[in-house]
Amino acid sequence: MHLTSQTDYALRLVIYLGALSPQKRTIAQIADQLQISRTHLMKIVNRLTNAQILHSVRGKNGGVAINPNAYSITIAEIVGYTEPNFAIVECLNKEECSCVFAGYCSLTSFFTDAKAVFIEHLRTKTLGDVIKENSVLPPSLN
Amino acid sequence: MHLTSQTDYALRLVIYLGALSPQKRTIAQIADQLQISRTHLMKIVNRLTNAQILHSVRGKNGGVAINPNAYSITIAEIVGYTEPNFAIVECLNKEECSCVFAGYCSLTSFFTDAKAVFIEHLRTKTLGDVIKENSVLPPSLN
Repeated sequence: MHLTSQTDYALRLVIYLGALSPQKRTIAQIADQLQISRTHLMKIVNRLTNAQILHSVRGKNGGVAINPNAYSITIAEIVGYTEPNFAIVECLNKEECSCVFAGYCSLTSFFTDAKAVFIEHLRTKTLGDVIKENSVLPPSLN
Repeated sequence: MHLTSQTDYALRLVIYLGALSPQKRTIAQIADQLQISRTHLMKIVNRLTNAQILHSVRGKNGGVAINPNAYSITIAEIVGYTEPNFAIVECLNKEECSCVFAGYCSLTSFFTDAKAVFIEHLRTKTLGDVIKENSVLPPSLN
């Protein structure tokens, strides 16, 4: 059980840009520093820009920076923007459920609750908390 | 974020055989009833038999049944037998982590804790609880 690579990379991206704020970086620079493919990165940047977590400026002097207001956003919210679904077991997504026990089984509510305690935990930390706790970037990124 | 299909199907299998106990069923019967491929099912049956959750008898009058002692096993334990890993984010599995922040980032301990609260929840229900709560099988399985 794991989050998608899109979510994993989105977290790396906001931590990186959060620590560098107010500096911006180009897609090429970020891809190089975080060792993520440009294509994959572009999709994540677009998504997080639409969510107003990032500011993106196109053109010659363009680049991507963290939106300073995003420091108060929780890890749960960031994950919510990038994770396609949280159907821990199939029956949490009724439309795509093939289980013959759907509607008859107490595991549906049980896993709904397990998902809720997981997400509740992710609400207890903000991006700002992580940036403050990390305090230093790895030497290779300074 | 979701459990693997192996885990999802393993849960269906133990609920099915748990409700039918002490009856046994052949792989062909189970595959037909639960609409799971035989190949996939065989692997899960082998794993759960090794874990002593199932009893498997080979041969002409063979079949698979729940081990009556398995009613006290928790959902966390069943999931632990079938889920290949719980690296919610890559840094929870140091050997396969590509993140440049590994060792510098507080999200590692944060997601370790998120995983722990999730698994702790899965410890609060046993297979026996689920069988009791479900009380009836879907009509097609009776």
